[in-house]
Amino acid sequence: MMFERFHTVRFSDCDPAGIVFFPQYLVMLNTNVECWFDTGVQVVSFSGLHRDLKMSVPTVHLECEFFAPSFHGDTLALQLRIARLGSSSLALEHCFRDAADGELRMQAKQVLVWASMQTRQSEPWPDDIRKAMTPFLIST
Amino acid sequence: MMFERFHTVRFSDCDPAGIVFFPQYLVMLNTNVECWFDTGVQVVSFSGLHRDLKMSVPTVHLECEFFAPSFHGDTLALQLRIARLGSSSLALEHCFRDAADGELRMQAKQVLVWASMQTRQSEPWPDDIRKAMTPFLIST
Amino acid sequence: MMFERFHTVRFSDCDPAGIVFFPQYLVMLNTNVECWFDTGVQVVSFSGLHRDLKMSVPTVHLECEFFAPSFHGDTLALQLRIARLGSSSLALEHCFRDAADGELRMQAKQVLVWASMQTRQSEPWPDDIRKAMTPFLIST
Amino acid sequence: MMFERFHTVRFSDCDPAGIVFFPQYLVMLNTNVECWFDTGVQVVSFSGLHRDLKMSVPTVHLECEFFAPSFHGDTLALQLRIARLGSSSLALEHCFRDAADGELRMQAKQVLVWASMQTRQSEPWPDDIRKAMTPFLIST
Repeated sequence: MMFERFHTVRFSDCDPAGIVFFPQYLVMLNTNVECWFDTGVQVVSFSGLHRDLKMSVPTVHLECEFFAPSFHGDTLALQLRIARLGSSSLALEHCFRDAADGELRMQAKQVLVWASMQTRQSEPWPDDIRKAMTPFLIST
Repeated sequence: MMFERFHTVRFSDCDPAGIVFFPQYLVMLNTNVECWFDTGVQVVSFSGLHRDLKMSVPTVHLECEFFAPSFHGDTLALQLRIARLGSSSLALEHCFRDAADGELRMQAKQVLVWASMQTRQSEPWPDDIRKAMTPFLIST
Repeated sequence: MMFERFHTVRFSDCDPAGIVFFPQYLVMLNTNVECWFDTGVQVVSFSGLHRDLKMSVPTVHLECEFFAPSFHGDTLALQLRIARLGSSSLALEHCFRDAADGELRMQAKQVLVWASMQTRQSEPWPDDIRKAMTPFLIST
Repeated sequence: MMFERFHTVRFSDCDPAGIVFFPQYLVMLNTNVECWFDTGVQVVSFSGLHRDLKMSVPTVHLECEFFAPSFHGDTLALQLRIARLGSSSLALEHCFRDAADGELRMQAKQVLVWASMQTRQSEPWPDDIRKAMTPFLIST
């Protein structure tokens, strides 16, 4: 299973060179993780895990390839799959494509951890979250 | 030679988890490249290269390790050196440290290219810019 | 007629106080104007008016009342109507409401102008755009 | 007394129209309030009032006039004075000027309140903060 959402590139995403400002791709990426928790994993919402569980999912590693620029008005398909589900970590693979022709614009590998907001230490994924994430693992 | 600037973490850099929102680190990184062009390389300002030369420096590859969170009010030392200076590319090494005790918070490798804003194609670095960049190469 | 769109408050919209960072409301407001051009006015897309027509719609006046905070996960109804349609200006009234109970969170009056990106001077609204905007005028 | 800080307009502040994106002016404004607390008022830092006192200073009213665009590379003088110091509110007058020739780019009136982060209710300004703010009142 792959989680996919569409995002139209807005004026506020773009820079004076007329293309998506690269840190703004990471805001899109973070929002896609949020939407995946809300409507893909569905055990606890991204706001709920912060507010109610006092947990967070800080990014510890990030690798991005930017293949082609995206322009104001482009619609992008934001695709998310799991590369590896560790005991307290999660390696996600993100592909951002032009929704019109599938051209790969950006590919990212992101590693995040399940961490307490109080202690800032990682903790094992709860079983129900791990179980709900498993279908998004890239099959081998 | 290393280029170093200080940035105090602002309210607007932080997220509901109380720490620097990771895409905001990339805004800091981009601004540090801008300041390095303006006051380190000094051949053409970052605004001038866009406005007058119609060139840009799009990022094509990015790799980040986030070692420890940064908090509102922290002063960070943003350090930049060149890992490799290609014919039309540039690999930068960024270290973001707590200015108080030197703790490494984030380390990034960024590859950018010298590219025309009109054609979106890379071009060889002009000789004067290449020469002015060379002192920032990590010695081996 | 009123233009209405829904926006779920994302992690990236919020500040360390746990609520929408007020400049982020203005990003939402700007994106709502963009969506209104794209799907409400429908004469020229917001990206098209910048890229093809080389026009822009700079904001010259803004007035906001912030009535109540919005929290991460809240769904907001972003409502837009025209208070006054001048020869080259446009006064918009924005109401941001909690979509669940209609509570008014933010109300804004924004005046923008139709201006050339080259000359930075205002110009009269084209007739087709003016005609397509008219139904959104608040009836008196 | 007037509080003044300089800000060079960065690539990340600008939009595809090549000028400061107006919500970004409000990020500058918020950071200027932060710096005024840190180095002008000096009773408690902006990070300290949030983290240690669990207080916040939400904006309840904002009025901006945008007189002229600011471009990438411009240095702006961000000027702050107090228009009115209420029992639990504060009306600030902000003038953003081109540092080179003093041209007024943006003028804003902002009303904020001293409010508990827990109750989200306003509270009277502590005496020491009120006293330290008083010199910044516009004399009449």
